[in-house]
Amino acid sequence: MSADFTPTERTRLRRRPQRGHFDEATVFAILDAAVVCHIGYVRDGQPVVTPTAFWREGRRLYWHGSAASGALGAQAGAPVCCTVTLHDGFLVGRSGFAHSILYRSVMAFGMPAAITDLPGKRRAMTAFLARLYPGRSAELRPIQDDELRQIVVLTMELDEVSAKVRPGPVLEKEPADYAVPCWAGTIPLATTVGALEPDARLAPGTAPGASLAAYAPGARLEDALRAGARGEPT
Amino acid sequence: MSADFTPTERTRLRRRPQRGHFDEATVFAILDAAVVCHIGYVRDGQPVVTPTAFWREGRRLYWHGSAASGALGAQAGAPVCCTVTLHDGFLVGRSGFAHSILYRSVMAFGMPAAITDLPGKRRAMTAFLARLYPGRSAELRPIQDDELRQIVVLTMELDEVSAKVRPGPVLEKEPADYAVPCWAGTIPLATTVGALEPDARLAPGTAPGASLAAYAPGARLEDALRAGARGEPT
Repeated sequence: MSADFTPTERTRLRRRPQRGHFDEATVFAILDAAVVCHIGYVRDGQPVVTPTAFWREGRRLYWHGSAASGALGAQAGAPVCCTVTLHDGFLVGRSGFAHSILYRSVMAFGMPAAITDLPGKRRAMTAFLARLYPGRSAELRPIQDDELRQIVVLTMELDEVSAKVRPGPVLEKEPADYAVPCWAGTIPLATTVGALEPDARLAPGTAPGASLAAYAPGARLEDALRAGARGEPT
Repeated sequence: MSADFTPTERTRLRRRPQRGHFDEATVFAILDAAVVCHIGYVRDGQPVVTPTAFWREGRRLYWHGSAASGALGAQAGAPVCCTVTLHDGFLVGRSGFAHSILYRSVMAFGMPAAITDLPGKRRAMTAFLARLYPGRSAELRPIQDDELRQIVVLTMELDEVSAKVRPGPVLEKEPADYAVPCWAGTIPLATTVGALEPDARLAPGTAPGASLAAYAPGARLEDALRAGARGEPT
């Protein structure tokens, strides 16, 4: 295992260390397959977990939110834990104990910093749009300064990071359990794209632009995100 | 809005209060459509966010984990935040600012307690299996006491709870933005079931039992969970 990220007391796995991964390729692939992360932070001594859209550039995470909400202000300069989870299916065993969840997850500890200058915010938000909808900025009017003033953009270095992956197959505790005469195996799950729904106020005949080409009905979201990153249709 | 859960300083929405919901029906529907939650807790002053499978019975949440991992021991009797998020799609606007995420989420604050007696653990784990695979326990050998000793089961009352829902349509900031000549609307997303994959060690001819009937290929996971709860195929 290439240790691109150095395990720490918080990120090494005490149990089943073979499920822990610290290489950039595994960590980046999980982060890039997801849209929503869960940010944990401490407010008045209490843990708070907020879901939010995020994106990655190299070894940095980014997320944003309303300046009016207060949540991002509480996260800036404070210790946070950003967790990303992809639930890939169910492992169905022959004993209750062997039932489990297929997943890929990343946990990143750090202290996010706020991007406060307007050019920096504009660059970040343009990159976020491009991550989901490559080329879309060119189809839109420019972002306005007062729109940037209404949001907080946070960025955090990926440094204390681990991935945890639970693949198949079903692991029965006792050899005899494999003989229990019931079905066992995997129920795969995937996040998939549905048919695009035009806005009620859309001018008739307006087609989705090239920036949305990756979101073909039936496509897996993570394939669409990957294709989008490469500028390809799915 | 029926205030089945009483908003508190932590759960009321300061921004866009119309997106906050405190009625049992909305909260329960979101929790019952999900399998994985994110538990935030504080360890040595640092926030930690752990993904885990959970289930609900009435006004209680349950989750479990290995007694060897230490995470659940740190959560028992401590303040936690349990957040459940369903990412339902993308809102594609005519300005960068109007792009958003369709989601349903629930945030629950509380202090989980460990279920320590074996009958209580057995009942809880049997209920968890039944929530995902109704009737499956009858197809399996009984859960063994030493299996129950290897896990920690936590339960937390649903008391300080809120739901937050972001539905469509696209909201443009300025009336003039509606005239920007690019596509706008919704890209729906759903978690869907794939074709069941038999375990490599499965005896030939063993068919999935009735307990898995809801997981029909192509079914939406939340429909399968709902059908399972009613004992119906999808």
